[in-house]
Amino acid sequence: MGEFELIRRFFASAACAAGGEGVALGIGDDCALLHVPPGEQLAISTDTLVAGVHFPLDADPFLLGQRALAVSVSDLAAMGATPVAFTLALTLPDARADWLDGFARGLCAMAQDCRIALVGGDTTRGPLCLTLTVFGRLPVGLALRRSGARPGDLLCVGGSLGDGAGALPLVLGERQDTGPEAQYLLQRYWAPQPQLALGEALRGRATAALDISDGLLADCGHIARASGVALMVESARLPLSDALQALFPRDFALNCALAGGDDYRLAFTLPAAELAAVQADWPDVAVIGRVEAGQGVHLLDVAGAELQPPALGYQHFGSQGD
Amino acid sequence: MGEFELIRRFFASAACAAGGEGVALGIGDDCALLHVPPGEQLAISTDTLVAGVHFPLDADPFLLGQRALAVSVSDLAAMGATPVAFTLALTLPDARADWLDGFARGLCAMAQDCRIALVGGDTTRGPLCLTLTVFGRLPVGLALRRSGARPGDLLCVGGSLGDGAGALPLVLGERQDTGPEAQYLLQRYWAPQPQLALGEALRGRATAALDISDGLLADCGHIARASGVALMVESARLPLSDALQALFPRDFALNCALAGGDDYRLAFTLPAAELAAVQADWPDVAVIGRVEAGQGVHLLDVAGAELQPPALGYQHFGSQGD
Repeated sequence: MGEFELIRRFFASAACAAGGEGVALGIGDDCALLHVPPGEQLAISTDTLVAGVHFPLDADPFLLGQRALAVSVSDLAAMGATPVAFTLALTLPDARADWLDGFARGLCAMAQDCRIALVGGDTTRGPLCLTLTVFGRLPVGLALRRSGARPGDLLCVGGSLGDGAGALPLVLGERQDTGPEAQYLLQRYWAPQPQLALGEALRGRATAALDISDGLLADCGHIARASGVALMVESARLPLSDALQALFPRDFALNCALAGGDDYRLAFTLPAAELAAVQADWPDVAVIGRVEAGQGVHLLDVAGAELQPPALGYQHFGSQGD
Repeated sequence: MGEFELIRRFFASAACAAGGEGVALGIGDDCALLHVPPGEQLAISTDTLVAGVHFPLDADPFLLGQRALAVSVSDLAAMGATPVAFTLALTLPDARADWLDGFARGLCAMAQDCRIALVGGDTTRGPLCLTLTVFGRLPVGLALRRSGARPGDLLCVGGSLGDGAGALPLVLGERQDTGPEAQYLLQRYWAPQPQLALGEALRGRATAALDISDGLLADCGHIARASGVALMVESARLPLSDALQALFPRDFALNCALAGGDDYRLAFTLPAAELAAVQADWPDVAVIGRVEAGQGVHLLDVAGAELQPPALGYQHFGSQGD
């Protein structure tokens, strides 16, 4: 089967091709064409997932397709952008129809949820690896950057932290559990919901934002560096899900929240005057600290004393080997 | 070394970050931001190159970087788009500074040639694999599609064919040759020049266009299908470089031109009335056949009799195993 036939069969489905306003030309030519209305900009992000590094080699293809797109779209949420379209570069050791069918169904299910259209890509033979590039639109000047945090701002997150890292022992089969708490964590891992509506609502309000993919402390470091400020994280205020707390001792759950990756919640800094309005619409938004003059990320206990942070977040080629 | 440090060190160089008008925000945030002027659209294309499939495992990193970007930008030329920006997803087995340095220099050299800016990407650990997504801009309604060829149009190419396939025995080390003809073919393989200016000049003139990556006959098949026409290719009119003819017997050279991939010349259909004006500026443009009512691609000898085509072009998962 030729690559074009493959792509046609599995990915040119209505579910994936529908969606995002602004697609002038989709799959099938040398390029796709996007229309960007006057007064808007295009936001672009690229993510790669490698089998054996970012997901288990035997991952369920439906779940993998769903998760791969969610992870990428989360970067659009972090910028305050509205999804339009995406491309998929899929490298596969062989063209197994059942695998491709499951993967395409998972991918398209998430594409429908996020209202984003598949507009192109490439299918090649090689070790299993996915690269997704996502496109979103947003009004000029309203992108949520990492660089605008100011002393006095509150540090907030969009919901419970640590569920992604808490799910890992289950994902890797190191822990067997089929109870509702385990199901919840697995759902958070395999189908994280990009916080798109929250990101759009934070336009013009948040002074800095990103999505938590490498772990809260590591990602807060990006905001601290880009903004030239210090971020004070109060460990007692981190929101932990009931499921995470039911399954793990508090210390482990806290470490998952601080240093575990794969949460895909938004972390953002907010002038205090904006908090009430944001929490009125987004009750899960939690204040977890504050911005101060200085540099770096500082973890504080209840009394305000500085704590030693747990191991660093997810790093490629780093000490953790990922 | 963390992935962010890697990316900063090797890719945030001035040579790669400069270029394309329209980059509102480059590397370093959750997304890059592109500005698309009113009346223009954004063209997008994604290509993956896998080590051992699309290039030798021990390929020189400078040449690889140069070629990877050229191959991707060629899709913009095929659409008539002007390059703006690109993202790079780089998967590497290890973080060797000398390899990354060479690769980045090759990539950035081609980026400068094409006036395209690196605006983002991802660096992950795994088997060597590159995915580039390129962005170009073009006036609304003037994209060179594959679907507009009409009976009576001429079939043209932008220059000599078969050099990429002719270079393969040299690239793979199956043939040793350091003469000027071999150097020419190797240059065509490792640093193909995307025909950007020709693509822009064909806006509003060519009725269909693409770049030849899978082989002339295979790629002409895409135009024939998309346009619902037959393409008649006259084998005696295929332009062959002096180097290709000096190094190989005519039959082999002709097969390279017909079925070999990696040429990255534009193939396009043109109303006969446009030919003189196009050739005045582009003397290397050659007429190689014509469009007729019907379907499929037909190879003709000097007398107009139909010839059996050589083996099919480059196919993933296909009979040729790529």
